Amino acid sequence: MFGSIFCCVPNHLPQLATTLAAVAKSFHAHGWLLGTSGNLSAVVQRDPLHLAMSPSGIDKGELTAEQVLTIDENARLVSDHNAKPSDESLLHIRIVKERGAGAVLHTHSVWNTMLSDLYAGDGGLSIAGYEMLKGLQGVRTHEHSEWLPIIDNSQDMPALADRISNTLREHKNAHGFLLNRHGLYSWGDNLAQAKRHVEILEFLLETLGRTLLVKNRG
Amino acid sequence: MFGSIFCCVPNHLPQLATTLAAVAKSFHAHGWLLGTSGNLSAVVQRDPLHLAMSPSGIDKGELTAEQVLTIDENARLVSDHNAKPSDESLLHIRIVKERGAGAVLHTHSVWNTMLSDLYAGDGGLSIAGYEMLKGLQGVRTHEHSEWLPIIDNSQDMPALADRISNTLREHKNAHGFLLNRHGLYSWGDNLAQAKRHVEILEFLLETLGRTLLVKNRG
Amino acid sequence: MFGSIFCCVPNHLPQLATTLAAVAKSFHAHGWLLGTSGNLSAVVQRDPLHLAMSPSGIDKGELTAEQVLTIDENARLVSDHNAKPSDESLLHIRIVKERGAGAVLHTHSVWNTMLSDLYAGDGGLSIAGYEMLKGLQGVRTHEHSEWLPIIDNSQDMPALADRISNTLREHKNAHGFLLNRHGLYSWGDNLAQAKRHVEILEFLLETLGRTLLVKNRG
Amino acid sequence: MFGSIFCCVPNHLPQLATTLAAVAKSFHAHGWLLGTSGNLSAVVQRDPLHLAMSPSGIDKGELTAEQVLTIDENARLVSDHNAKPSDESLLHIRIVKERGAGAVLHTHSVWNTMLSDLYAGDGGLSIAGYEMLKGLQGVRTHEHSEWLPIIDNSQDMPALADRISNTLREHKNAHGFLLNRHGLYSWGDNLAQAKRHVEILEFLLETLGRTLLVKNRG
Repeated sequence: MFGSIFCCVPNHLPQLATTLAAVAKSFHAHGWLLGTSGNLSAVVQRDPLHLAMSPSGIDKGELTAEQVLTIDENARLVSDHNAKPSDESLLHIRIVKERGAGAVLHTHSVWNTMLSDLYAGDGGLSIAGYEMLKGLQGVRTHEHSEWLPIIDNSQDMPALADRISNTLREHKNAHGFLLNRHGLYSWGDNLAQAKRHVEILEFLLETLGRTLLVKNRG
Repeated sequence: MFGSIFCCVPNHLPQLATTLAAVAKSFHAHGWLLGTSGNLSAVVQRDPLHLAMSPSGIDKGELTAEQVLTIDENARLVSDHNAKPSDESLLHIRIVKERGAGAVLHTHSVWNTMLSDLYAGDGGLSIAGYEMLKGLQGVRTHEHSEWLPIIDNSQDMPALADRISNTLREHKNAHGFLLNRHGLYSWGDNLAQAKRHVEILEFLLETLGRTLLVKNRG
Repeated sequence: MFGSIFCCVPNHLPQLATTLAAVAKSFHAHGWLLGTSGNLSAVVQRDPLHLAMSPSGIDKGELTAEQVLTIDENARLVSDHNAKPSDESLLHIRIVKERGAGAVLHTHSVWNTMLSDLYAGDGGLSIAGYEMLKGLQGVRTHEHSEWLPIIDNSQDMPALADRISNTLREHKNAHGFLLNRHGLYSWGDNLAQAKRHVEILEFLLETLGRTLLVKNRG
Repeated sequence: MFGSIFCCVPNHLPQLATTLAAVAKSFHAHGWLLGTSGNLSAVVQRDPLHLAMSPSGIDKGELTAEQVLTIDENARLVSDHNAKPSDESLLHIRIVKERGAGAVLHTHSVWNTMLSDLYAGDGGLSIAGYEMLKGLQGVRTHEHSEWLPIIDNSQDMPALADRISNTLREHKNAHGFLLNRHGLYSWGDNLAQAKRHVEILEFLLETLGRTLLVKNRG
């Protein structure tokens, strides 16, 4: 599960931090990280786990590489920062462990918030038949059906982390999930892949949402 | 009510003015300050009150720190500018006094204009159950219901300021309000918090507006 | 009709050209000048009339001050350019003459295209009761009703110019008009005012269009 | 069919590559190339054919001129790159041959994806009566009807290339086509014209999509 290139050689932290800040700026410009919402992380080393992560309560459009924290597998601060790790650090750590991910990105977009709400009753939503799906790791054809699970939101982070574990084990092929009326989590082997997955899922959620508007009409 | 860090030590005006200009540029890029609409202010000192504020009739995408005025509690020009304070200065001053705010931001977005119109008959609108609400100062869970009061628009600024006082006293926990077919006012202890509140409320108004479109169908 | 500040002192051409290019870049970023559509002009001198204008067929997001042409009142090239004046130069000249405008801006936005189409049968559309209207020159209150005439589109420019003259004379207070399925024309005493008018009208057309979607339901 | 200016004099590759990167950045900002989707090409020389092209799997918002590949008419790498040509290279080559195009651009936008889906049953969609159509090469009036064919998507690139040939021969005047739930292809004599065509078709597809929403209602 843990990819070989991540197991032994630590990633270069300054470079990861710079890339995290660049991804944050880009996503903020899309309106996916407004109001200090969302957070971004990347694995620095796996044994023991060190995760580079955006701090809590920071304007993501202004995030600098210097502000990026390092936390351990219990979400305790490792780096010498006078800052607070995000409450959702536990969720990032859980995804890294369950999926062997090298990077985890969490966005709050209008469309992912809306669709998580509209489909919460179904426990998830299906995205099928779009060429864009081919950009998700391991998908070879547009004739693919991606199930995006929707998990109930909670402020109890350990409980939510467990719920995420269960969901990820049940849906082995999912490339992301939604927290209801909260946002999207996606991940990848590295930051570039995680960014690609977020852009693809955000694109497809907007497409689905707008299509719903047109198709449902009389 | 007046926060301790604001009571005695004057804020550094050049820095406030630079930040006001940066926030204006960012909001203009979102389309929230088109056509010289909207205005932005931050408290320089409280006793006597000096407020740094964007001048009237300026393109907010082009606002410079040098153009930022200073006014007193009667909205009279204190700084040595050959410019006109905004007619809405009185509203900013009133919010500073009622809430002890350190910064007040007023935006004109398509979504806040639309929703103020659609819900004017109800005197306000409720936003509940979204994770984004946690970004509002003092809100600890998504299981929060934010009432956003809607106030009738007017060109009589003293009368409108009084209406705002009444509304703010009636809704002690409100983080913002709408003027009907006019725009959003929000505020914070400082500029960063006020910016965060505007981004969150604008995000939630767009989410509410789009959800309305999808849910009402069929 | 011809404003005193414009009658005698020629405007500084290099400065006008630089500002025209900046406005073009800003409007292109809004998606209002895609595909080389739209055009922008500003009066250099009035007697005889010289108009600085964007050339035909240029990507407006890439327009440079050096590319800005000067034409006379018959739309003939005055400046030493190897370029083609826009076919719509005649329309700009007519608006300058009818309104004494110092600048004329023409945009193609999705919303102005849609609304010109939807309301063509009514000969125009009314925009009333919005605070944003106060940004239009001479409007003092949101309790204003702006009539935006819609004119049938044509490729016969002299005939279209005459139709515009008739419309402007019939609607003395109009700050702009739509060409059906074509775009918006607005103007001002100078470029800053014309830019403000376009931003306000585009904002209000989007607001009207989206409100239509929500209000008509159910 | 092969335009004279392209037959003999090779285009300057570094300049083409720089322009390709600039177009990619601009389209990515519009949201038309998210998640490494889409691709862009321009003819370097025609006999034998050399095509400058964006590589597979690259973030188009970050594409640099140095990353632009050169391929031959069989989509084999000519330039000294350690990179993979896009699977869709064959489609670009086919369009260059069928239309004598100097540049081919392929975008994934929300609106082109939606409309290809909605109108797939009709085999295409008609766009008529818009001034914007005049920006398409050879179109002289808004009284033009553009047929945008919709082709079934496939992962069998040689078969898809043949389907494209048939479609282009059947619709001699088409300036672009849609692949169902996949994206838009357009082209031009050179990159500037191809960019113009994409911007125009994307604008008109959004206009059509939004108009559909408003017009269909009650």
